[in-house]
Amino acid sequence: MLVNSQNYRTVWMQDSSVYLINQQLLPHKFDIYKSKNYIETADAIKTMIVRGAPAIGATGAFGIAQAAIEFTGKDFEIFKIHLKKAEYVLKSTRPTANDLAFGIDFVLNKALDNFDVDIAKKYALKASNEYADWSAEMCRQIGEHGNQLIKNNQNILTHCNAGALACVDFGTALSPIRIAHYSKKNIFVYVDETRPRNQGASLTAWELAQEKISHSIIADNAAGFFMNQGKIDMVIVGADRIAMNGDVANKIGTYEKAVLAKENNVPFYVAAPSSTFDISAKTGEDIPIEERSEDEILYMHGMDEKGNINKFRISPMESTAKNPAFDVTPAKYITGIITEKGVIKPIREEIWEFVKNG
Amino acid sequence: MLVNSQNYRTVWMQDSSVYLINQQLLPHKFDIYKSKNYIETADAIKTMIVRGAPAIGATGAFGIAQAAIEFTGKDFEIFKIHLKKAEYVLKSTRPTANDLAFGIDFVLNKALDNFDVDIAKKYALKASNEYADWSAEMCRQIGEHGNQLIKNNQNILTHCNAGALACVDFGTALSPIRIAHYSKKNIFVYVDETRPRNQGASLTAWELAQEKISHSIIADNAAGFFMNQGKIDMVIVGADRIAMNGDVANKIGTYEKAVLAKENNVPFYVAAPSSTFDISAKTGEDIPIEERSEDEILYMHGMDEKGNINKFRISPMESTAKNPAFDVTPAKYITGIITEKGVIKPIREEIWEFVKNG
Repeated sequence: MLVNSQNYRTVWMQDSSVYLINQQLLPHKFDIYKSKNYIETADAIKTMIVRGAPAIGATGAFGIAQAAIEFTGKDFEIFKIHLKKAEYVLKSTRPTANDLAFGIDFVLNKALDNFDVDIAKKYALKASNEYADWSAEMCRQIGEHGNQLIKNNQNILTHCNAGALACVDFGTALSPIRIAHYSKKNIFVYVDETRPRNQGASLTAWELAQEKISHSIIADNAAGFFMNQGKIDMVIVGADRIAMNGDVANKIGTYEKAVLAKENNVPFYVAAPSSTFDISAKTGEDIPIEERSEDEILYMHGMDEKGNINKFRISPMESTAKNPAFDVTPAKYITGIITEKGVIKPIREEIWEFVKNG
Repeated sequence: MLVNSQNYRTVWMQDSSVYLINQQLLPHKFDIYKSKNYIETADAIKTMIVRGAPAIGATGAFGIAQAAIEFTGKDFEIFKIHLKKAEYVLKSTRPTANDLAFGIDFVLNKALDNFDVDIAKKYALKASNEYADWSAEMCRQIGEHGNQLIKNNQNILTHCNAGALACVDFGTALSPIRIAHYSKKNIFVYVDETRPRNQGASLTAWELAQEKISHSIIADNAAGFFMNQGKIDMVIVGADRIAMNGDVANKIGTYEKAVLAKENNVPFYVAAPSSTFDISAKTGEDIPIEERSEDEILYMHGMDEKGNINKFRISPMESTAKNPAFDVTPAKYITGIITEKGVIKPIREEIWEFVKNG
């Protein structure tokens, strides 16, 4: 992704340090966080300096590589114990993130597939970079396939941040938008601000501004209005998990936008790599919905006039809030799922076929 | 309405001063703004110390009474010129608010319906209080009729603030909720925070907290989720204007909630007095939609940890926003309109009958 006209990834490794775009400070300040060892990397995941399942997966992969490089001994058995400890520390930062375990295991298996510490270190480093490259390439391919759905002069609505910042690069929902822009299509993006955490207004808008892609932030309440006015040609969102019948769990509000898209005959696409499909979930009912802290509703973060980023109360001290973080959009509202291998229909047969060959 | 267990109205007059609950400071601070003359009252309307069409109407009515009382001469012709100037100043504060002109004209006509300054002053004062009482009574009756739709143990969703603070007392959408609570029904209110101006999270939640009515604030994005989960039995919202075919203009996001209510078989009611019906609007297409400042999306107001109320930026400096303030909900999504005379169907025949006899 472009930041200040330079190419960046969300996470990368150089020497023995992991570098991360510090998402805690966006959109107010662009800063690279440098983690010097795997403990610091674990901490960066925990404190959400990095967020977004694919980005966390790559960060975990680099964390294990860091742990391998850090090891100063020559005994392979002790080396193994050291890596297992790092695995535990890294995995426990966000226990429900599927990609995190996947990235960590990928590097760990490559590292431990021999009996020499020095060779294992090289393998670990190589595997972590391979994992990040592979993850970025998946997203780029989603972009290529999704781009074929986008016509010149179209207006696209997106919800939350399924952008490069949530991945290693390109993003999922934002990847087709990026590729359309790179291929000189004239597009305009309506960005749902995505309360309560405002990932649209803070992260998606920031990414689009950096790439000079035309966009406006809208209140989540206004998405239906613009669809009804015929101002939106297509909706593209990401996904946290996809059930085998095509039901999609994603950021709260996705369901609302999908119902409104259907009501207004606006195509509604979900962009996600194959790793998002959960073969253990028959339908959306098998996907648990996480309830997050009510403080996300009752307070907000912003930059005051002096440039300080602060927490503000925006509701009565006596009031409580309910904060479901995700919702499930039934397959019937979804036009298609944009994967790295092409666009598939949200129906059981196509999904099985896709997952089987994945 | 109850505030700190005492009965208040949003606006009232005592001696020659107009008193207003200062809505700029809510929900963080409860403060009564005292306006000593009609110029200060006009300013209070302009700076949104008071907002909400019925509340502004009553404030305008009191403003004219103030202007009358202030006059120290005895010449009725000069008195008339003085009142006409006050009319101009007061009406130009919010030129599109229908109720404002209505309240001002009501008092002005009663005052000028004779030829003696002292009698006119008495008439103006009496008329302004009559107007406020009448406005509060309309809302109370809406509450009585709406209450008949509410069953014990029901969960009600509301959007924006169509509460006592927007009126003289009781509110429109919140009036049935208040009356249900007063009549000892056990109810729970889901409060849409209502971005971008957050009238739900700041004003509606505050009113409900003051009346000790059980409620939780939710992100606007979560309303559809809760409907889909079967957690919401009924939606009640207010209205800014109702067309003769039953289309309803109201705060942005109302349309979204109405579509979602229909999709989930949740009854969707609009509560509004007869003055909200616009005989010049055949359908919702005749109702203009106001676009407000993008700063309402890009910035927010809140209270920091030191108790200061500040403006803070919540989006990238490079990004723009689009901010339609209202939307139009087609009649087909509306179950009924709760008026001061009963519940009517949003169909042309019933509305004509209602308006004709109004």
